[in-house]
Amino acid sequence: MVNCPVCYNSFDKGDYKGLSEHMISEASESNYEHVSWLNRNISKDRLGGDELEKKISRFYSLESKGIKRWIIDNFVLNFRGENPHPFILGMQKYDENLLKGYAVEHHHFLKQWIKSCAYVIAKSDFDDIHDYEMENIMTEMQGFGNRKPSHHELLIRMGISLGLRREEILNSTPLETTMRAIRTWEKIAEKKTWIEIMAAMHSLELVANRDLNRYGAKYPYFNPEILKDMGVKQEVKNFLREGYEADVSHSYVALDIIEKYAEKENLEDIQSAYLNSARVFGEYMEARIERGEMYKNKQ
Amino acid sequence: MVNCPVCYNSFDKGDYKGLSEHMISEASESNYEHVSWLNRNISKDRLGGDELEKKISRFYSLESKGIKRWIIDNFVLNFRGENPHPFILGMQKYDENLLKGYAVEHHHFLKQWIKSCAYVIAKSDFDDIHDYEMENIMTEMQGFGNRKPSHHELLIRMGISLGLRREEILNSTPLETTMRAIRTWEKIAEKKTWIEIMAAMHSLELVANRDLNRYGAKYPYFNPEILKDMGVKQEVKNFLREGYEADVSHSYVALDIIEKYAEKENLEDIQSAYLNSARVFGEYMEARIERGEMYKNKQ
Repeated sequence: MVNCPVCYNSFDKGDYKGLSEHMISEASESNYEHVSWLNRNISKDRLGGDELEKKISRFYSLESKGIKRWIIDNFVLNFRGENPHPFILGMQKYDENLLKGYAVEHHHFLKQWIKSCAYVIAKSDFDDIHDYEMENIMTEMQGFGNRKPSHHELLIRMGISLGLRREEILNSTPLETTMRAIRTWEKIAEKKTWIEIMAAMHSLELVANRDLNRYGAKYPYFNPEILKDMGVKQEVKNFLREGYEADVSHSYVALDIIEKYAEKENLEDIQSAYLNSARVFGEYMEARIERGEMYKNKQ
Repeated sequence: MVNCPVCYNSFDKGDYKGLSEHMISEASESNYEHVSWLNRNISKDRLGGDELEKKISRFYSLESKGIKRWIIDNFVLNFRGENPHPFILGMQKYDENLLKGYAVEHHHFLKQWIKSCAYVIAKSDFDDIHDYEMENIMTEMQGFGNRKPSHHELLIRMGISLGLRREEILNSTPLETTMRAIRTWEKIAEKKTWIEIMAAMHSLELVANRDLNRYGAKYPYFNPEILKDMGVKQEVKNFLREGYEADVSHSYVALDIIEKYAEKENLEDIQSAYLNSARVFGEYMEARIERGEMYKNKQ
């Protein structure tokens, strides 16, 4: 099955004709989201039916590369390429309001994150996957004792160092955009297979991957000068450094697992789950900016 | 909703009339499993419709006790009371074949166990529940480094000390009875709410609870003399001791969580999930005996 990456309309496996006709129909009604997805992922030109079908078919084709590389290339294009996500642009300088927005919205992201990872454990039978996801949940939310606080705890401490109260973050209501994204991830976790959930969730970790330059990334997740800046709070450095200093090889483990277990029969399902997730992730990252703006305007 | 504890036929919430009519109809056809459940849980006498309905209604009623105590009382009655489960009887002396059967079948039980616990995390939003289930999965399947092997690892080592090979356990096919029980737990985990899953799974841990005497248990899970017996393999002692020496107060944490979050609206669902699970647990424990017999007959 192939889904429209924008509105999740589903088409038969390999029915790129149906998908391209749907795209043309949406674009002709100037549906902004469909047009914007086509511009970025397929072509900036308005294409005819046959040509669009051919290009969409090529877009989904793995050609000689595997699903891992396909995901990486698409992710770089959408988030860290020539035309990066605005949140990435914002992170090229130290912006306390943006980081406060990050702290609040990302708290909600992480709460859903571990539920999605738990669904992967619940739905799979493989020890390597159970081990991987258990370590992931521990790292993100539980931590390993006092000496190794969780990523979530480091996030909260960053927020506090910037003037937020712990309860303010924990009891916050996520912005509507964040909520919509969370609902999508929840639905993927409930309805889809473990490998689709993994593709949907762990691909998103590429956003902070330091190694993406060799796949064409033009921007780092954040300007690494921030880590050396004397004016930057230690808690901010602790949070950002965690991802920045992670073992690069470790950052591909999930994609390697997906590549190992993917089969011809479910490749398109995996691609669809990834595309749906990446799309709402882009929107969710805008919610971090929006929340940052709210803090800025409050000052 | 109330389910028949034997065949899972479902009736409207509070429809004990429907359930008792169903029981009478099954009993009149001498359906062994329904008769046996009635004998143990309701009455050994063959009762008329009204009287059975009254007794069944009283059976589900919590009266002044909470759901925690209701589960404990029923569990003791079914597994560790005057008429205990045959596996419990078998464990009153040291029986290597029985323990080998335990090792093989319980490997499959634990594989399902952690998936059920992962479903609880996936479906709940409460930190205390996430923390509890994460620790549970770590203890049962992951362990905490070399110095604290998982319960699963201790089980495997017990099997090896009794002459099995690790691969023999890991690659074994569960007996049909075990498989049927696992399918029930899987279905509960997939279809039910987190609190029903918790009631279904964590109630089963009562089987090894050392504290049940004060709730009327007549038999310990195993004869504690085994732990002192010079003729008993150290690995057997290590496995049995793990549960035996667990902090007693810790053994009620899950039931306390269930009592904390249970609401009038879902009490019957929780009771049904527990009853369904306890029933197949009894069958599954017979599979441990059956597998033990197979080892005995091989000698």
